[in-house]
Amino acid sequence: MLLGSVEAGGTKFVCAVGDEDYRILHKTQFPTDDPKETIEKTIQFFQQFPELQALSIASFGPIELQKNNPNYGFITDTPKLKWRQTDFVGPISKALNVPIYFTTDVNASAYGEYVTAQLYNEKIDSLVYYTVGTGVGGGAVLGGKILQGIGHPEMGHTFVKRHPDDLEFEGICPFHGDCLEGLVAGPTFEARLGVNGADVPKTHEIWDIMAYYVAQATIQQTMILRPNNLVFGGGVVSEEFLVKVRKHFKNMLNEYVHVPDLKQYIQMPRVKDNGSATLGNFALAYRVQSE
Amino acid sequence: MLLGSVEAGGTKFVCAVGDEDYRILHKTQFPTDDPKETIEKTIQFFQQFPELQALSIASFGPIELQKNNPNYGFITDTPKLKWRQTDFVGPISKALNVPIYFTTDVNASAYGEYVTAQLYNEKIDSLVYYTVGTGVGGGAVLGGKILQGIGHPEMGHTFVKRHPDDLEFEGICPFHGDCLEGLVAGPTFEARLGVNGADVPKTHEIWDIMAYYVAQATIQQTMILRPNNLVFGGGVVSEEFLVKVRKHFKNMLNEYVHVPDLKQYIQMPRVKDNGSATLGNFALAYRVQSE
Repeated sequence: MLLGSVEAGGTKFVCAVGDEDYRILHKTQFPTDDPKETIEKTIQFFQQFPELQALSIASFGPIELQKNNPNYGFITDTPKLKWRQTDFVGPISKALNVPIYFTTDVNASAYGEYVTAQLYNEKIDSLVYYTVGTGVGGGAVLGGKILQGIGHPEMGHTFVKRHPDDLEFEGICPFHGDCLEGLVAGPTFEARLGVNGADVPKTHEIWDIMAYYVAQATIQQTMILRPNNLVFGGGVVSEEFLVKVRKHFKNMLNEYVHVPDLKQYIQMPRVKDNGSATLGNFALAYRVQSE
Repeated sequence: MLLGSVEAGGTKFVCAVGDEDYRILHKTQFPTDDPKETIEKTIQFFQQFPELQALSIASFGPIELQKNNPNYGFITDTPKLKWRQTDFVGPISKALNVPIYFTTDVNASAYGEYVTAQLYNEKIDSLVYYTVGTGVGGGAVLGGKILQGIGHPEMGHTFVKRHPDDLEFEGICPFHGDCLEGLVAGPTFEARLGVNGADVPKTHEIWDIMAYYVAQATIQQTMILRPNNLVFGGGVVSEEFLVKVRKHFKNMLNEYVHVPDLKQYIQMPRVKDNGSATLGNFALAYRVQSE
């Protein structure tokens, strides 16, 4: 069986086909350019595989996921102006004529991690995946289902208690200033220190401040969803960074509720090389073709 | 059909029986005293009604809700020392021999509000209920099911951005200091102003500061669960207070995601006179007897 994956990111598209064991057989990538051209390139990639059974698209957002909404399958009020109100699923569905699952990039990553945990026989019923990169976002799987309310989560845009050594920084979120994304997304290095994050030594105190904020996101999830597991991906995250996050989380939680061992509870992605979303897409494509 | 409800609060127990239309037929209350005596009084009340079909217990916490845990049905690490590690469901189940549903007080309230919304034919799929009273807690219903992870939520214990005019106050949560509960629970009036909340004029600026924090809890839910509706009950909450919460919420959200009209989105309980938990208990008892 041939399954398809589209990861539509703000800067690049990654398209892949895989088998029912979720192994990648073919893969390509191209920049996120004009919507019409980029969608056309996506279609052309998959048209090489007439035996394709189903496709899952994990997209940057915001996107419309309510199937009864006339704009289902659209990218909606994105800051990427050319992509505003773009019908994304429609033209792909029409050209390829296979079942399509449509979700956010972080939802697909959460699902990929969840499926991998099941394959590893971990006893996990619920999982949250955060990406901390150019932006901050999160998705969750509860009891095998992707969490979805009146829209998809926007977990990067909650507020947090400010670190005493970071009170002056206004944050960079164009909507909220110092929400989580405004305080810890990759471009905050440039905004706070005037240098690229890759050039900031791991010993710099900024990492501790950022961990203080990410620990609060972990507290939010721990108190609201009570998941088995939180996974952190994205360019800002490293195991060293998560060591700091765990330290702050432990202090903040103060043993108020029981959580699993912190090394398991707060962890890097199981799927290496940013592969969680592709694997999640394959699993979601498998699911949609069998419905 | 006769259904039973126990609301086990930190200061008083309310026991009631009702019919399948969730109307209260008999009701009693007594102080939360020594566990053995209090549980015995609860049993004696229900033993008056041999036709009782099922019972739902909504308890102060923390409580153990995992059915595969040997301590299922216990009140666990509560600050009420006499009640620590008390088997609550066990003796009642043994004495009454009816199916019992066990949950938190706020979960039952959330369920009561959800069921009422269905009866009113509101198109609501998900709902969060917060109580802001002696403590702060929250429960949620998603797609008809009570939200439950590795334990029940403790939504009152997340952190929030401090209000610029309230930076000195340390908060009163014995575990977390200035978590949401530590900043807005009823006893914070005494701690901040030295007077009881009932004596603080509605024009006092403290209400605006507290609304700023409750609005952030609303932002957390909006970005994580994306519910249709948030209900606020408890002694601190009034319609005047929610007007302030809506104002801060609107400013903080900054139209980032679509939410329903704020008067519907953020509201007082549908069920009057603190009746949400009793009604929720009847509905949960009905559910457990038909399983």
